[in-house]
Order: sequence, then structure tokens, then C-alpha cells
Amino acid sequence: MISIGVIGYGYWGPNLVRNFNEAPGARVAWVTDLSAQRIAPVPLRYPTIQVSTDYRDVLRDPAVDAVAIATPVSSHFELAMAALHAGKHVLVEKPMASSTEEAARMIEAADTRGLTLMVDHTFVFTPAVQKMRELKRSGELGDLYYYDSVRINLGLFQHDVNVLWDLAVHDLSIMDFVVDRQPIAVSATGLAHLPGQPENIAYMTMFFDGNLIGHVHANWLAPVKVRRTLLGGSRRMVIFDDLEASEKIKVYDRGISVNPSPEKKYQMLVGYRAGDMWAPQLAIREALSAEAAHFVDCITTGQKPTTDGAAGLRVVRLLEAASLSMKAQGALVSIHAGVAL
Amino acid sequence: MISIGVIGYGYWGPNLVRNFNEAPGARVAWVTDLSAQRIAPVPLRYPTIQVSTDYRDVLRDPAVDAVAIATPVSSHFELAMAALHAGKHVLVEKPMASSTEEAARMIEAADTRGLTLMVDHTFVFTPAVQKMRELKRSGELGDLYYYDSVRINLGLFQHDVNVLWDLAVHDLSIMDFVVDRQPIAVSATGLAHLPGQPENIAYMTMFFDGNLIGHVHANWLAPVKVRRTLLGGSRRMVIFDDLEASEKIKVYDRGISVNPSPEKKYQMLVGYRAGDMWAPQLAIREALSAEAAHFVDCITTGQKPTTDGAAGLRVVRLLEAASLSMKAQGALVSIHAGVAL
Amino acid sequence: MISIGVIGYGYWGPNLVRNFNEAPGARVAWVTDLSAQRIAPVPLRYPTIQVSTDYRDVLRDPAVDAVAIATPVSSHFELAMAALHAGKHVLVEKPMASSTEEAARMIEAADTRGLTLMVDHTFVFTPAVQKMRELKRSGELGDLYYYDSVRINLGLFQHDVNVLWDLAVHDLSIMDFVVDRQPIAVSATGLAHLPGQPENIAYMTMFFDGNLIGHVHANWLAPVKVRRTLLGGSRRMVIFDDLEASEKIKVYDRGISVNPSPEKKYQMLVGYRAGDMWAPQLAIREALSAEAAHFVDCITTGQKPTTDGAAGLRVVRLLEAASLSMKAQGALVSIHAGVAL
Amino acid sequence: MISIGVIGYGYWGPNLVRNFNEAPGARVAWVTDLSAQRIAPVPLRYPTIQVSTDYRDVLRDPAVDAVAIATPVSSHFELAMAALHAGKHVLVEKPMASSTEEAARMIEAADTRGLTLMVDHTFVFTPAVQKMRELKRSGELGDLYYYDSVRINLGLFQHDVNVLWDLAVHDLSIMDFVVDRQPIAVSATGLAHLPGQPENIAYMTMFFDGNLIGHVHANWLAPVKVRRTLLGGSRRMVIFDDLEASEKIKVYDRGISVNPSPEKKYQMLVGYRAGDMWAPQLAIREALSAEAAHFVDCITTGQKPTTDGAAGLRVVRLLEAASLSMKAQGALVSIHAGVAL
Repeated sequence: MISIGVIGYGYWGPNLVRNFNEAPGARVAWVTDLSAQRIAPVPLRYPTIQVSTDYRDVLRDPAVDAVAIATPVSSHFELAMAALHAGKHVLVEKPMASSTEEAARMIEAADTRGLTLMVDHTFVFTPAVQKMRELKRSGELGDLYYYDSVRINLGLFQHDVNVLWDLAVHDLSIMDFVVDRQPIAVSATGLAHLPGQPENIAYMTMFFDGNLIGHVHANWLAPVKVRRTLLGGSRRMVIFDDLEASEKIKVYDRGISVNPSPEKKYQMLVGYRAGDMWAPQLAIREALSAEAAHFVDCITTGQKPTTDGAAGLRVVRLLEAASLSMKAQGALVSIHAGVAL
Repeated sequence: MISIGVIGYGYWGPNLVRNFNEAPGARVAWVTDLSAQRIAPVPLRYPTIQVSTDYRDVLRDPAVDAVAIATPVSSHFELAMAALHAGKHVLVEKPMASSTEEAARMIEAADTRGLTLMVDHTFVFTPAVQKMRELKRSGELGDLYYYDSVRINLGLFQHDVNVLWDLAVHDLSIMDFVVDRQPIAVSATGLAHLPGQPENIAYMTMFFDGNLIGHVHANWLAPVKVRRTLLGGSRRMVIFDDLEASEKIKVYDRGISVNPSPEKKYQMLVGYRAGDMWAPQLAIREALSAEAAHFVDCITTGQKPTTDGAAGLRVVRLLEAASLSMKAQGALVSIHAGVAL
Repeated sequence: MISIGVIGYGYWGPNLVRNFNEAPGARVAWVTDLSAQRIAPVPLRYPTIQVSTDYRDVLRDPAVDAVAIATPVSSHFELAMAALHAGKHVLVEKPMASSTEEAARMIEAADTRGLTLMVDHTFVFTPAVQKMRELKRSGELGDLYYYDSVRINLGLFQHDVNVLWDLAVHDLSIMDFVVDRQPIAVSATGLAHLPGQPENIAYMTMFFDGNLIGHVHANWLAPVKVRRTLLGGSRRMVIFDDLEASEKIKVYDRGISVNPSPEKKYQMLVGYRAGDMWAPQLAIREALSAEAAHFVDCITTGQKPTTDGAAGLRVVRLLEAASLSMKAQGALVSIHAGVAL
Repeated sequence: MISIGVIGYGYWGPNLVRNFNEAPGARVAWVTDLSAQRIAPVPLRYPTIQVSTDYRDVLRDPAVDAVAIATPVSSHFELAMAALHAGKHVLVEKPMASSTEEAARMIEAADTRGLTLMVDHTFVFTPAVQKMRELKRSGELGDLYYYDSVRINLGLFQHDVNVLWDLAVHDLSIMDFVVDRQPIAVSATGLAHLPGQPENIAYMTMFFDGNLIGHVHANWLAPVKVRRTLLGGSRRMVIFDDLEASEKIKVYDRGISVNPSPEKKYQMLVGYRAGDMWAPQLAIREALSAEAAHFVDCITTGQKPTTDGAAGLRVVRLLEAASLSMKAQGALVSIHAGVAL
């Protein structure tokens, strides 16, 4: 039985508690939050869970095997490092850290101690994203041409991170899992409409080696909610619309066909190909439930998590590059991948 | 009665002929096209219209007052200059020319001779775009925050111009009319998926003085057709979806409200404001019909067309800057507005 | 403090428990269900709530003021009557009973004892339905012309009631509240696709005195889920689409205009009127929470509930008439309204 | 070369002229209409077509092989009979006549003379409806369970026929072609909101032998346009939405599965089956063009048209029964199929 402490009980913490509480082989032992008011309802709902306003109570408890960290980004590094030093496995919210340097040190700390470090890239565990990856790996899509995502809504303005770190982080973690290749450079643009605040609208292009391009549009100030990803391949194209009740994934047998022109040498004729559309039935399952089970499993067996520290670092590296490019109004920022990542 | 010659009878020419033929105060006298096959049906459908495979026949005809040029972009400059030199008023397809230099010379040639030079920015004459401009000018939207447009489909790949010159030109002409301000710099990214061909997917950010940002996503290789523009203002936001049968324009009484925080000095509390949505009834009218009447009117009265050469040049200047930035993978390109434009 | 016992802990019971537990002035004292397995999780989640597999334990408890009955329809009458005889106020699931006779006796039993009898017509407490009623009462819609509702999905086939008693009951309770008039006759048709089972697809027309007609289409065997109501008035028309995330209510300023024909005496010219569409912002609130508060309020103050026994009976009367008409393949069945209802 | 006269040049006539003019093996020789104003543009657009305000000019012309009748319903019988008596083949608008008696006499007149009599059930020639029929005939849908259609909009009120004869006629002709079985009884309800006018809202249920039910909702007074048909089968279900730009036909691999209950003898367990959705790519083709070619082909070869007089009569018989049932507020009206139809 893996005993888990949940640090941070704001928006996401209650979901972690509920799912770990129902995960086979796990139990939630502690919930902590700086705010005594926020943790007050916990004992009423879960009489067996201990609470505290000091996360160190969790780290000190030798019965605790692992912690799940659901606090603001700026505190991830300090909390995760303290947990790892105390010998606890760690599941940390995304983005995993405020910088690649922090992320790299977290990975090293976990590796040194043989502890599991997993990042909560929840979307990776949804049936829709799993299906996209399966379609890509099976070769059904052909060569990937582009990954284009729009994630906009009328949202809570964050004070400490810009809209890319808040919204695009989802797209980058999905892209990392589905595309399975890493960008080599980033160009990003954006604007902060409120003085002294981080950018609330942003556009981010990612260049890859070869014939692939990526783009994310993130916006806290849109009149409607859009969650739509286009994945274009040489053989088929996919639309992932997360707001669809069913039919979240649509696969289009459409594309271009290229033939040498019969008339003009050295020129190609580009034609359309328009075939059927197909919406595969997806499993109905809460992503966080599968993710909690995976975390428990990784701790027990020692296997690498699907969304390990390296995946988390790759996402942070893109966010870092994008923020830099955005300050320089779109100037290209190269991604220098570390050796072992 | 204004007598008009239509040069170019491919995809768009027939629409020009039909609309000018039905425009009060105008008649189509000539239709020319390099292809004898393409103009063959004209005399059957319009017995009174003369045809030729040589546009110079039109320019030589002293009875012709004006020409409408609907040929590939690369020929606009030569044809328009010849027509202006022959003393004919000119309506030219968009983009009006291949470069700002060409565009500037066309404007000068028309001005020198006191001739009308109008660019066929058709969308400007749609009820939907007119309504957007009206909403902006009335102050209902407040300060403009962003202009974001997506224009994608599975489309014909062009061989001579990239996807921005083919698709984004629509958005730039609409933005020019509605926003009524000019960008000061452009950052664009894109990719050509076929070797030796122009870019078929592109993203283009436009920076303005002050609190406004613009963005266009254009793509010839999308599985579905999208024509959607978001116009965000400090008081209201608009969605223009051109694929909606009715309700093309939706106005959202939504946004953010900013208040000084009661707790923390120097910090603002950013809150939502979510009110009604409203879809104004739009007139049902073919845009090209209104545009044809406007061209005739400008010739007759000497007034400046709404979409005059200067508007056409502003759009070409943005396309030129975007192509340049795209080659440099997003590097910022400044817009140096000419004095008189 | 009103002390409440919830009888029946299947699909809906947990929602009643959660909402009454959070309702000011109320507490849930008991939960009962025939199945020991179903009530097993209750003490874990709500340590202060007593459980039993015998509802009579609740009725015997003098501390209990009221019961909420969420059991199959066939048991409503027996359970409600036992509760009323035990001096408990009653909230009963819809449809309130299996027949008008049962419903009438329940009303009488409550009235005799001065007890509150309320029917759980949940939709009546949604912001969308409240807005529809408000639009109707304000006169904005003009005279009502029709009420048309479609409620279809791939659903659980019921064994004891047909699809009208399961799905159309929602529409009839909404219509009763919004239209505020009662049908005088019903014609219904339908089919049972499985031998020996109740009808799983049904159509039901309701005739009113004057210029109003109602219709409901209910279907357990549809490939997609539809929840859409059209409410046509002489001045405006409303669409209520419950599957829309926002914009559940759209008000159309459209209709017909009738004028005497200038040419033909005695003939009318019927023209269109097409104006704006408007989607009012709706409050975000769980209907059952408002309903729980209303039930508590009615018990405390003695006021009549909005969805009282009479409303419940009117709905049962329509379902009864529809089932009768359906057996006779659409034959008209009159509604004989009782005197006091 | 088949020479054709088009009688009636209102809303639909121009489409007939254009399509027959472009049909291989056919030419339009005459266009007639009672209104000289309506036919005035014909010679301008089609210099070789003769016009007249008297349809008898067409019938007298021995060079004319066939007529296409696009006049109000009430005149179909008289015009078609006159044409058949003059030895002309006939294509007549839907509904083919005002009564089954008229329709039967038209069929007899054509048969006696060996002339082609075809009814313009245009939808039958659309790729979408052809696909539905193909799906049904291949057995992919299994046994048909229901045919449900909604055809509503803010429409022109007709003075001479009710909304079923104007709108539902489309659905009945599609159903006749796809389902390939005939109803045995009809129950219909509706209302006329304007005094002295025909019903503008109507609901029509059709009963078949066995496990199939049909329903049409037609309405001239709806705020939005809906054109949606559900076709439920035991193996798969289809949605035909004619307002979708692409993806007009969606096939759902969904339904119910019935198994004997392991617990209760004699009781069945009804479960869901939810599989993929599939939208077949449809040909892009104007239905009327295919239909014109088919008419020419039938005249030339003597084969029976797909939409022959018998199909037209079956549709008129349903409309007649529905009008009768509607007057009796839903009373069941049997369909007595004639012997040879």
C-alpha cells in the first residue's frame, strides 16, 4: 500500500485526493495547504486523512511513500527537492518548474536516490490523446506536417506566469507525447493588455528538423472557449476538439496528392484527395484515475513514468524559449537539447 | 453609362461580368482572356458583349471607360499601368500588385491622370464586415485589444504566391477597414511542405502602437474549412464566422474588469465580466453588387473609393513584410509607412 | 433546522443527499435503500447520517421532519402516503405517481394534514427555464403559438414505464411551468421495438384552447443526444438547447407579419420578419440546490411549492392520456381537468 | 435530341431550364408562364428558346417531345393530362397532383400512350439520399426501426396547400425511396395559426407492418432552419443533415443489444452498444442535373423512371391521409394501397 501526501489543496488538489483515494494500492495519508480554511472540509469528507498547514509534517512522516504537489509553479522546485531529499517519490503539477535549470536539478535529485519523479501532464492519460498517439505511431497519418492548437477562453488572469505557462503547457505536453519529436527553435509573440501583468494573449511557432511545424494560440481574453487541435499528416489529418461531448477525435482521409505534370517538365501537379471522415469511439475514463494508477505502478515496479521528469523538462524548455522570444517580438530562439534528455 | 471591359475570365471574372452587367449606370462592353476556350461561353450568355484574347483590344476602344482586372497577381501591375496610360479607370483584384513599389507606381499613375483606382477588397462590402466596422467606430467595443483570424481549408496550392498572399490577403483587407490603424511591425512563420513550392501554412503576427495585436493563420492543407475572426475590445468582443448561414456576427458583452486590490497595494484584481450575446440581423446582399455600384459611383463623382489604391498598398506592404519575416523564421520586420499613404 | 430522510439511493438519491446536506436550515438525518450495498458508502462519506434498508426506520424517527423519495415510480404512492400518514413533509421524484388517482389521493392526504407535498420537477429550478417563463410572462414573446420539444438519446430502456414517463415527463413539467396553460386533449403515437417491452419511441401532440399546440418527441434509441425545445410566439421565438455549454437560451426577434393584401380583398399577405438574435447571460447555479432551499422554505413558512402536488398531477394526467392515446394509435384523448386543480 | 418545353417559370422553372439546357441529348425549346414579366429575361439569357404566356403553344409544337411542369400543385393535373393527350412525355413537380384520384388518372393516361411520366422528387437524386438507400439495401443498417424527419424554417406561408404538402412532401419522397416499404396507416396533427389559412405546423406519424414507425415534423414558423433525418436500424443508425456543408451523412455504429437475463428467467437485459461514427465522402453533383439526364434516358430507352408516377402517387396518398387525419386531430387513417401500385 503506497501512502501519499497531497501538498496544496486549491483548485486541483481535491481531484488528486479523490483519485488517489480510489486508486488500488494507494491511500491518501496527508493533505496540507498554507490555508487552514481550505483544508477544513477534508476531515469531514475523509475522516482518516490527516491535515496540516505545514508540508514538512508530511515529509517528516516515515509512513509516507510519496507526495503529490499541487501548488503554484514558483514553489514546485523547493517543495519537490525537499520531498526528494526526504526520500519521497514525487508527482508534481505542470509546468514542473520555473526553469530548465530547476527541472534538471529535480531530475538529478530523483535519479540519484532512485526515486520516481513524475509530472502531472494529465491530458496524456486521456483516451483522446492516447488515440492520437496510436494513430501517429501506427503510420496511419503518414509523415507529420503540422501540429496546430488553439486554447482560448475568458479565463482567470495569472499574476506570476504568462498565458503560455498557464494554457499552452497543456498543448506542449500533448504534442510532446503524440509527435514524439522535439522542436529545434521557437518564435513567439504576444501582448500584455494590463500594465505590469504577464502576457495574456500569445502565439508560439515551433520549428522541427524536416517537414514539421507546430503552433499554439493561447488567450485568456476570448469571448468563447475553444480547445481545438489540428494534426496534419501526409496521409490523414486529425481534429481533436475537447469540447465535443462525444466525437472528440475525427480522422479525415484527406490530403494532397502530388504528381509530375504531364505538360510542364520539372513542375508538379498538386491535387486534392477528399475521402471519408471517421470518429473512433473512445473509452470513457477519468484521465487522472489512470494517471494515479500509473504513478503507483511506477513506484512499485521502478519503471519510468510515461510523463517523467525528462518530459516535464522538455515542456519547460519550450516555455522558457517562448517567453524569451516573446520579449524579443518573435526573434528565433534555438533549443539546445541537453545530452541525456 | 459607364462602359466596362473585364480582363481575365477565370474563377472570378464571371462574377465581375454578372455584377457589372446588372449594376445601374454600367454595361460590360468587353471580356478578354488569354484562353479562347474560357471566353467561348460569353457570347452565348451575353450576346452584346465583345470578346478577345488580347486585352489591348479593350484599351484601344475609346468607348470603354474602365477596366476590371481579374488575372494572376504577377500581371496586375503591367495591365493596370497599360489601362491607366490608356486613360481607363481601373478596378484590380487583390492583392493589387506583387510589391509595394508596383502599388505605389499604380497609385501615382492614377492620381496624375485623375483616374479612379480601386482594389477589389470584396469582403469590405459584405454586411458582416460593415457591421464590424460600425461596431468599432461607435465605440461599443471599447479599445481594441486583438484581431485574430483563422482562414484554413483544403485548398488549391498556388505556384506563384504563398498562402498569405492567397488567403491572408482577405483578413488583412478586412482588418485594414475595421481596425482603421496600421501595424508598425510584422513577425511571420510558415512552412512549404512541398519542395520548391511556396509556403502552404503560415502564421503572421502584427504589432501596433499601443495595446493592439493582430494575428492571421492561413493554411491550404487543413481537413476542414474555417473562416473565423475574433475581435477583442475592452468593452465587448466580436466573433465573425463567415461559414454561419445566419448569425455571422456575434457580439459578446464579456471582458475583464480591473480594480485595485483591497488587500495588496499596487496590485490589481482582474475579474471577469460575462453578459449577454447578441447576433444582429444582417442585410442580405451580394457584396460584389454593392462594390460594382461603388466603383461606378466613384468614376461618376470623382470621390475616393473606400478600397482605394492606398488601402491596396497597405495590404501589399504587410504581405511583403510577412514574406520577408517568414524567410527569417519570425524575425521582426518593421513597416515604414510612406508619407502620403 | 429541518431534518430530512432520503428514501432511495440509486441514481438520483446521492444528488438529493449532497444538496440537502448543503442547504441552509436543513440536515440529512437518514438515507435508506433496499440494497445494503448501495448505502454502504454513505457512512464513509457522511459520518453523521444514519442508514437503513427499511424506510420505516425513517418514518418512525420523530426527529425527522421530511422525506425525499427517489425510488421507482411504482413505489411513489405507497411511500409518500406512509410518510404523510407519519406526519412527514414529502418531496417526491417525477412523475409523482403512476396514475392521476394516486396523485389526487397524495394531494388530499397532504392537504388534510397541512403538510408540504412537492414534486421534484428539477428543470423548473434551472436558470434557463426560469428565463423562459420570465420571457413569456413579460409579454415579450407575444401570444404563444407552439411548444415543441425533442428529448432523445441512446438510453437505458426502462422495463416498467414507457419512454414518455421517463423522458417526456421533463418536457411536460417545463411546459406546465412556462406556458402556464393546460392542454385539453392529447394524441400520441409510438412503438415498442422489443417484444413485451414498453414503447421506446413516442410522439405526443397536445391541443390547447385557442392558438397553441404542443408536441414532444421522446426516444431511447437515437444515435445522438438531443435536448431541444422551440417556443414560438407571435412576437418572438425561443430555442432552449440544454446541451449548449453557454447560450442555452436564444431569443429570436423573428416571426410573421400579416397585412391585408392591397390587390385581393379578403386575402391576407403573410410576410416574414427577421430581426436580431439574443442570448441572455444565465445565472450559474445547480437547480437542485435552489430546489432544496425552496422545499425547506415551504416547510418553514407553509407556502405552496412552485412544483406542488397539483403541478405533479397535471403532468401525470398528460402522461396517462398519452399512454392511452398511444395504445389507440393516435386517437384523441380529452383531458378532464378536476375542479380544484 | 429530346426537345423540351418548360411550363412555369417561377421559383423552380429557371433551374429546370438551366439543367435541361446542359443535359446531353436534350435542348429546351420553349418556356411558358402566365406572367409575361417572368419570362421576359429568358430570350436575353437563352436566345434560342421560344417563350409564350400560353402553354398550349408548346403542346401544339410537333417538334416538342416532352414537357416539364413547374406550376402550382392545383394545375398539375390539367396541364399534365393536356400534355399526355398531346403525346408529350411529362416531368411534373411534386406533389404530382392534388389527390390520389388525379394521380391515378395521370398514370393511366401515360401508360395507355406509352409515354414517360416522371415526378420531380429531386432529393432522390442527391448523393446523400442515394447513399442512405445504398446503406439500407446492403443490410448494413439491419432491420429498420424508425424514420424521423424535421423540416422547419421561417418560410413562405402557402395559401392553397398546408405545410405537409409543401415541406413534408420532400421527406415522404425520400422515405419512399430509402425505406422501400409503404405505411399502412397515418395519424397527423397540426394547427393553422392564421384564421382561414392552411395548417402551418404539422406532425405526422406513419405506421408500417412490423417493427417500423415514421414521423415528420414540418413547420413554416420556426426561428431557425432545420433539415434533419434520423434513420434507426437494428445494426446501425444514420443522421442525414442537409445543412451540413460536408458530412451530410453520418453513420453510427450504435444500438441496443438484447440478451436473456442471467438472473430473471423470461426477462431480457437491454444493453447499449456504442461504436464508431463514420461520415462517407459524398459525390459533389447537382441532383437536378442527374435527374434531367435520367428523364432524357427514360424517354429514349423506355425504361421506368426511378421516381415514376407510382412513386408520386404513393406520396400523394400519404399527404391525403395526413390532411384527413389532421382535420380529425390525429384519428388513424388507413392507407388502402391500390392493386397495381
